Amino acid sequence: MITSPGNARMKAVMQMKQKAKVRRETDAFLAEGIKMFLEAPTERIREVYISESFSCPDKKLEAAVREKLDRELGREQKEVVSREVFDKISATCSPQGILCVMKAYHYTLSDLLQKEAPLLLLLENIQDPGNLGTMLRTGEGAGIDGVILSADSADMGNPKTVRSTMGSVYRVPFLYTESLPDTIKTLQDRGIRIFAAHLQGETDYDACDYKGGSAFLIGNESKGLKPETAALADQYMKIPMKGAVESLNAGIAAALLMYEAARQRRKSK
Amino acid sequence: MITSPGNARMKAVMQMKQKAKVRRETDAFLAEGIKMFLEAPTERIREVYISESFSCPDKKLEAAVREKLDRELGREQKEVVSREVFDKISATCSPQGILCVMKAYHYTLSDLLQKEAPLLLLLENIQDPGNLGTMLRTGEGAGIDGVILSADSADMGNPKTVRSTMGSVYRVPFLYTESLPDTIKTLQDRGIRIFAAHLQGETDYDACDYKGGSAFLIGNESKGLKPETAALADQYMKIPMKGAVESLNAGIAAALLMYEAARQRRKSK
Repeated sequence: MITSPGNARMKAVMQMKQKAKVRRETDAFLAEGIKMFLEAPTERIREVYISESFSCPDKKLEAAVREKLDRELGREQKEVVSREVFDKISATCSPQGILCVMKAYHYTLSDLLQKEAPLLLLLENIQDPGNLGTMLRTGEGAGIDGVILSADSADMGNPKTVRSTMGSVYRVPFLYTESLPDTIKTLQDRGIRIFAAHLQGETDYDACDYKGGSAFLIGNESKGLKPETAALADQYMKIPMKGAVESLNAGIAAALLMYEAARQRRKSK
Repeated sequence: MITSPGNARMKAVMQMKQKAKVRRETDAFLAEGIKMFLEAPTERIREVYISESFSCPDKKLEAAVREKLDRELGREQKEVVSREVFDKISATCSPQGILCVMKAYHYTLSDLLQKEAPLLLLLENIQDPGNLGTMLRTGEGAGIDGVILSADSADMGNPKTVRSTMGSVYRVPFLYTESLPDTIKTLQDRGIRIFAAHLQGETDYDACDYKGGSAFLIGNESKGLKPETAALADQYMKIPMKGAVESLNAGIAAALLMYEAARQRRKSK
């Protein structure tokens, strides 16, 4: 059992929790909690740390955790740590007592373009980690094929992002691009239409056709899309807003667009 | 200028920031930032505190703030405070230098039932302040007539909630009910149908008719609706989810339902 927060492995985990740079250098991210552990693909799990006081009110869930630990993980991969140490490596206020160091994902554009008519989310400079995670979760629910992020967006490995995905981080392909304009061009060359909700949009979002290959551009939470990025869109549309509302939360806007696409694709079957 | 954090008024504001109980006792809430000040109905503003270092990169916005301060607010209502003191009363990491003490809102059920076919949101035990504020913002955009919350939900006066509403807190009627079941009964007696997204729902959410008086029941972020509350719904529906997604974020689910109702009502005109 690890009882010292000065232990080299614990120090490394604490660094991964705090710094995107360390996560990049170690090619890792942290996934915390029972649900995140149970859904984690075993081959991606590098290490698991379990609090000495680990237990769960739902005994079936606790048994599932213990079974996965016993059956699927090697002895050298798992380690019990003292409660005090676990509180230090945890990124949550009420830790569930289990935390994995995961091997980071590396997708290529072709992973996101497997289907004939892909549905994609393009994020420019999204800053809120929780918002980002929620977009991935909603995106999986809506059936998107992947998320492409500008390099200045929040880190998908941020513990808050990972938690907000509720496991979708294991399943939805995503990649960061150094040049969103170049990526948009590539997508357009492949016949994918780029849609942006925009103040200049005149067509209601539910009056556009998303049954072909479609990508939704979503901009920064407070500043929106850069004008030069918005200018690359094939089509502007608007989400009608009543009252004095000037814009919707970025995660909400993304959800409405992705689910409208899902609705059209469901109906057309 | 107030320069001491020990000043009685500053202590009162700090208490209001931290405690729902103090907000209730003083019948007040805090609204911080330039947008929240500019949108605040003047007759609701009790006091305004401006940081000595107040300024805004957008000079038009700064001028609008100074004009509202000069024209609409009495001398005894506004006070400059030192930067150090402002940082203490502020609830944000990067304060914009302006904060109002607002008179709390008190709506009655009849305020929410003015229209012939009201569209309402019913929230049970929503805990995340940011999620709650975002639901109000999205709700205003979708054109809802009000939000009804169970008494154990997050406080609409929480500074994070107020900020997340982006001003909708001034415009969307809301009320807390000691008994959500009793309120549901009252709504049903007035011909309003109660809808709940539910695992047992078989009808897609976009196949139900929300053109008549409609209310959407949304439950706690992790536990969902209490079974006895869900049982009161007139109709269960489902939001189709692909992948391994078991549920959507409460704010996202609420947004999809409210905007589907808005879509149907727009089309039927």
